[in-house]
Amino acid sequence: MKALYTGVGKEDIGKYVIFSGDPWRVERLCKYMDSPKKIAFLREFNTYTGMYKGIKVTITSTGIGAPSAAIAMEEMYEAGMEVAVRMGTVMSLKEDTLGDFMIPVAAMRREGTSQSYVDLSYPAVADIELINIMNDTVKSVDKKYHNGINCTMDGFYTNMHESRFSKESNRDIDKTFNELRKLGVDGIDMESACLMTLGRLMNVKTCTLTIVTVLENLKDKLEGEDRKEAEELLCKVALEGIYNYVNKKELE
Amino acid sequence: MKALYTGVGKEDIGKYVIFSGDPWRVERLCKYMDSPKKIAFLREFNTYTGMYKGIKVTITSTGIGAPSAAIAMEEMYEAGMEVAVRMGTVMSLKEDTLGDFMIPVAAMRREGTSQSYVDLSYPAVADIELINIMNDTVKSVDKKYHNGINCTMDGFYTNMHESRFSKESNRDIDKTFNELRKLGVDGIDMESACLMTLGRLMNVKTCTLTIVTVLENLKDKLEGEDRKEAEELLCKVALEGIYNYVNKKELE
Amino acid sequence: MKALYTGVGKEDIGKYVIFSGDPWRVERLCKYMDSPKKIAFLREFNTYTGMYKGIKVTITSTGIGAPSAAIAMEEMYEAGMEVAVRMGTVMSLKEDTLGDFMIPVAAMRREGTSQSYVDLSYPAVADIELINIMNDTVKSVDKKYHNGINCTMDGFYTNMHESRFSKESNRDIDKTFNELRKLGVDGIDMESACLMTLGRLMNVKTCTLTIVTVLENLKDKLEGEDRKEAEELLCKVALEGIYNYVNKKELE
Amino acid sequence: MKALYTGVGKEDIGKYVIFSGDPWRVERLCKYMDSPKKIAFLREFNTYTGMYKGIKVTITSTGIGAPSAAIAMEEMYEAGMEVAVRMGTVMSLKEDTLGDFMIPVAAMRREGTSQSYVDLSYPAVADIELINIMNDTVKSVDKKYHNGINCTMDGFYTNMHESRFSKESNRDIDKTFNELRKLGVDGIDMESACLMTLGRLMNVKTCTLTIVTVLENLKDKLEGEDRKEAEELLCKVALEGIYNYVNKKELE
Amino acid sequence: MKALYTGVGKEDIGKYVIFSGDPWRVERLCKYMDSPKKIAFLREFNTYTGMYKGIKVTITSTGIGAPSAAIAMEEMYEAGMEVAVRMGTVMSLKEDTLGDFMIPVAAMRREGTSQSYVDLSYPAVADIELINIMNDTVKSVDKKYHNGINCTMDGFYTNMHESRFSKESNRDIDKTFNELRKLGVDGIDMESACLMTLGRLMNVKTCTLTIVTVLENLKDKLEGEDRKEAEELLCKVALEGIYNYVNKKELE
Amino acid sequence: MKALYTGVGKEDIGKYVIFSGDPWRVERLCKYMDSPKKIAFLREFNTYTGMYKGIKVTITSTGIGAPSAAIAMEEMYEAGMEVAVRMGTVMSLKEDTLGDFMIPVAAMRREGTSQSYVDLSYPAVADIELINIMNDTVKSVDKKYHNGINCTMDGFYTNMHESRFSKESNRDIDKTFNELRKLGVDGIDMESACLMTLGRLMNVKTCTLTIVTVLENLKDKLEGEDRKEAEELLCKVALEGIYNYVNKKELE
Repeated sequence: MKALYTGVGKEDIGKYVIFSGDPWRVERLCKYMDSPKKIAFLREFNTYTGMYKGIKVTITSTGIGAPSAAIAMEEMYEAGMEVAVRMGTVMSLKEDTLGDFMIPVAAMRREGTSQSYVDLSYPAVADIELINIMNDTVKSVDKKYHNGINCTMDGFYTNMHESRFSKESNRDIDKTFNELRKLGVDGIDMESACLMTLGRLMNVKTCTLTIVTVLENLKDKLEGEDRKEAEELLCKVALEGIYNYVNKKELE
Repeated sequence: MKALYTGVGKEDIGKYVIFSGDPWRVERLCKYMDSPKKIAFLREFNTYTGMYKGIKVTITSTGIGAPSAAIAMEEMYEAGMEVAVRMGTVMSLKEDTLGDFMIPVAAMRREGTSQSYVDLSYPAVADIELINIMNDTVKSVDKKYHNGINCTMDGFYTNMHESRFSKESNRDIDKTFNELRKLGVDGIDMESACLMTLGRLMNVKTCTLTIVTVLENLKDKLEGEDRKEAEELLCKVALEGIYNYVNKKELE
Repeated sequence: MKALYTGVGKEDIGKYVIFSGDPWRVERLCKYMDSPKKIAFLREFNTYTGMYKGIKVTITSTGIGAPSAAIAMEEMYEAGMEVAVRMGTVMSLKEDTLGDFMIPVAAMRREGTSQSYVDLSYPAVADIELINIMNDTVKSVDKKYHNGINCTMDGFYTNMHESRFSKESNRDIDKTFNELRKLGVDGIDMESACLMTLGRLMNVKTCTLTIVTVLENLKDKLEGEDRKEAEELLCKVALEGIYNYVNKKELE
Repeated sequence: MKALYTGVGKEDIGKYVIFSGDPWRVERLCKYMDSPKKIAFLREFNTYTGMYKGIKVTITSTGIGAPSAAIAMEEMYEAGMEVAVRMGTVMSLKEDTLGDFMIPVAAMRREGTSQSYVDLSYPAVADIELINIMNDTVKSVDKKYHNGINCTMDGFYTNMHESRFSKESNRDIDKTFNELRKLGVDGIDMESACLMTLGRLMNVKTCTLTIVTVLENLKDKLEGEDRKEAEELLCKVALEGIYNYVNKKELE
Repeated sequence: MKALYTGVGKEDIGKYVIFSGDPWRVERLCKYMDSPKKIAFLREFNTYTGMYKGIKVTITSTGIGAPSAAIAMEEMYEAGMEVAVRMGTVMSLKEDTLGDFMIPVAAMRREGTSQSYVDLSYPAVADIELINIMNDTVKSVDKKYHNGINCTMDGFYTNMHESRFSKESNRDIDKTFNELRKLGVDGIDMESACLMTLGRLMNVKTCTLTIVTVLENLKDKLEGEDRKEAEELLCKVALEGIYNYVNKKELE
Repeated sequence: MKALYTGVGKEDIGKYVIFSGDPWRVERLCKYMDSPKKIAFLREFNTYTGMYKGIKVTITSTGIGAPSAAIAMEEMYEAGMEVAVRMGTVMSLKEDTLGDFMIPVAAMRREGTSQSYVDLSYPAVADIELINIMNDTVKSVDKKYHNGINCTMDGFYTNMHESRFSKESNRDIDKTFNELRKLGVDGIDMESACLMTLGRLMNVKTCTLTIVTVLENLKDKLEGEDRKEAEELLCKVALEGIYNYVNKKELE
């Protein structure tokens, strides 16, 4: 039986799943895999399965926001997923981090979806083994990593970016940034806390792997070739990290 | 300037916007328009603008869930939208409603995104003039309509459908349905309350136009040709409703 | 059996009920009815039943606040009420609306009573057919109407008006007005959200019909003969609206 | 200047105010006073001022529910009130208490109005000196008193009594009673917590003085002459208590 | 059987229990008792039982904070406690109260522990008979008493006192004080609301007896011999109050 | 200047601090250190500083509950703490874990104190480097470790253990355990979530190191010599872990 939204079945999916927010970025990841096969592209869910150094890996997309990310997570779990890596670029709240990797250890749960699973007292925390492996993989490509806290929110134009409406209603768009900086938060997104909470509850090992391509307030950003290289590096680290994880597990 | 996610600019968008949840259904709507032009298809946002009986109409998609729906709404508002019609199929909690239209007058705000705009005491309520016009348009094609209450939620597999995980955690998936039936709720979705709340705050006339293609518990559903006809009718009513609205406004 | 607080029985009450906040205003409405009969005047509940153009109509009072309004609503429902029209004067937050009718489509639920019925996510929304009829009735007397949002609150001297105590505790009495104006709210009262919520849950068609007699900050108000005429018009529109509603229903 | 709702001015009101829920019961209290003078009867607020053993006492009504009780309290405070005694009959949750006095030391704040003044962590607690005096006054007429906890709620037909609608929606009306009995609550009402909270904040000495006329589930109740005597006793104790309070204060 | 944390058994404990926050202050109280016997000193719970004027009294400590205070209360209740007196020094928010007694009639429940027993609507209120006796005892030693409201909080360095971290995070430490002063609060502590709530629920007569040794902002404080005398007086009043309470009960 | 409650000054405290709940267990830890010096034992805070393999380590106690744990954490931070290790025994919710180490990666925030620092959306998560070092240290003594989730709560006798009062009020003491087991929680305590939250906010590296000495429902427990050995091992691992941490940092 195929899943309701993503259209995937048990036979289509590897134990190791990489999630991209953007359905179109999935295609770019494919070129690093051997014989990637398109499983389905329904709604915002674009799914490929292929081999990486002998490991069956699935790449899919969540779309924007926790509600569709939870659907992707649930349907991949139904199909047999055991390890989940969310992959993407991130805007950093920290100075001098351009091009660094951010692999948050946990996330603030300022979105509504995970609350339909468990009350807010429960921590959205990544898998520590997966973080360690990803850290090592980042080090092996001579890059820096940060294991801080992300903040996940539902309202992009209420908390993260100005809009015609935010201006018309005199919303202070810096208020959230100022608060989060005081709390020592590294980055902001719309899915991590939900994926981490579900991963922990489902006993699926979960982490978020991101690369900083822009600093807050656009103070600095990667552009042109640098940006392209950063995204390629991100893809490689995600796949290589999964490869390292499998190897380590086999040795245990 | 083009919008961050949808990639649309002021020059690309009509005052009248139809929102589909599914990005691929946008294409089907196009065939009812004259000279539809693809504006952009970024992430889950697929946007066309064309003419319908002389009116410039934009069709776009929200993806699943309120966070991405709010982004679509904000960026269309930035580009000049004045009237918003969310269009889709719906599962009905009411007997004997297969093939009927549901045009909810308001929605329960059980999602997190609209709460980043205004506290829960605020009603998610559609525009009454738009509802009246849509009601009349439905009558003109000899169909029935229902002006009830929808319930919008963030968690599809926590509240609306069983999954491997919901079964493993012994979640009673009927609990929400039983509660909502007692409250007289007609249908369930993941975006309406957020769109209605934003529409009201932005002073954009907003409504949800849906057709019942399945009854709760799959007791009965439209299939094959019936289903296809229902979906075509839905497209026609959406566009014709906008045409009627413009005509009525011009007469005032 | 007679109801506990209002003292009414099934035989005393028409299907159409008009609610006044003030028990003494009930008497003024009576003069527009044929053979009004006093049913009971217990506590703040003053109840008359009479005929208007052949329709049996009951007029009663709720007193101030949602707790007593809910009691009136419950006891009238027990006695057979099917349509509920709350009628009154209102202070408007909008410029240039003196003498206009406000028939809010929905209300903010900032009172505690309706929360003992259903959680805050549920919308307090009026019946759309009743609103349409009332709109038409207002137009037929050459007046303007507004179908906006009201805000219903429990604390008169905390949110709506200065007092010795509000001044002693340095409460900023404009804070609520400023917030509500930004949310596009038309008017403020102490009962509508509760009546609309109960009406929707009970399947009693419910609306609020008000006439603007004063603008915010007393910038302008109806006085003397103008005020008297406005109140008379309000009574006539309420009764005539019910008459039109019954006629329309008979035609269906 | 006269107050907005009750119509009273500073010159009309004594420092000692007795509040009745029922506007009509005010009249019965009057016969125990010398030369009572009707001040105003607007909406549900019926106000008299007279002399009792040389002390100027005002009697007024609050109507049902905390919103109107708060208005009465605020306007009496504006007019100079220093001591507030809420007086009424009560249904007891305790066996063998028929005809006893209940003078609750505090109340559960399950109403919305007091929350517009101060957050729920604040206790609704009566004035201890006033309670002591009322206890002594009750003892002096050979009656028993109980200084327990009341619970104040907004929803009469959701928590305290069955109705057509509570039955249609399968509401378990005993649930609240069972919970409150476990918490050791003595009685239930709709105003005390709000009056106690406001009294404490305003520095107005406040208490609730009630007599048990009915046991829960109507297991037993005072009827006929017994009931009449109980209500007369209540009036006398309220007035005599105020007299004793003034005497004690003068001795200090 | 001995209790889990305090190590006390039924045979060890008197019906009258005095609670000190500080385990070491317990020893000082002992010298006012005849033949005090050390029961146990486990964790922060230091317990003695002895005789005072023929009455068996237990003195124990709660440590800082409501969680350990609730444990002490529960284990003393298990062992037969019927009357609980919390005793300590207090910082006053009121001018000119140095050396006065504060015997709060109730407390704000700004701590988390009592909320695991009962929702916030429930009042944390002391026993009125115990307060009256303590008031009389204070008067008998020619001291003044205040029967106001305390506020109990969990976070000492978030609400009550500056720290390195509060300064680093720019916390406005006066905010709470300013708010509480406006609410008429007398003093601040970390246990009273929890003990009062539990006492009321358990039907254990409970009060807090404190002496003011410092004014807010250290404007003034008792020092040297004055401080020592104050603390001795506090011990004497606590024990003498219990003696008076027993005597009064025997007379009834 | 010495801290208000613990009585420690900057000169007294090492950068590495071990927290014990029980003040008396601090003494047992001392015997593993060279030349431990008693700093102060005020209230429930018993503090020693000594040397372990050349590193200056402080051992102190928090008492029971988050309010006093937060005070200890704040005052140690004021005195220069950079690494915090909470150490103790734990009751496990998992089968076959007797004698294993539990080093939770994060904790559920069901206590009130950390909420006075930051809203519930923020995760209580340990430092990942510290966890890794502790894991390795546990492995080096041939023991197993678990990196799961703890749940921290304020009410011991409401959620974790039966009492006279819990039985009298018919509290279902298994309810919390059943819920937590479904959420995959490993163990329960009264301080971890607060310490982790503060550590993260203060940028103090924090973890909880516990050894399982009892299974839920007392199904099995370590006794006699086994228990003693387990506790000794716990002390050694805590100190050795800090030593390893310092070594690793020096190599970086």
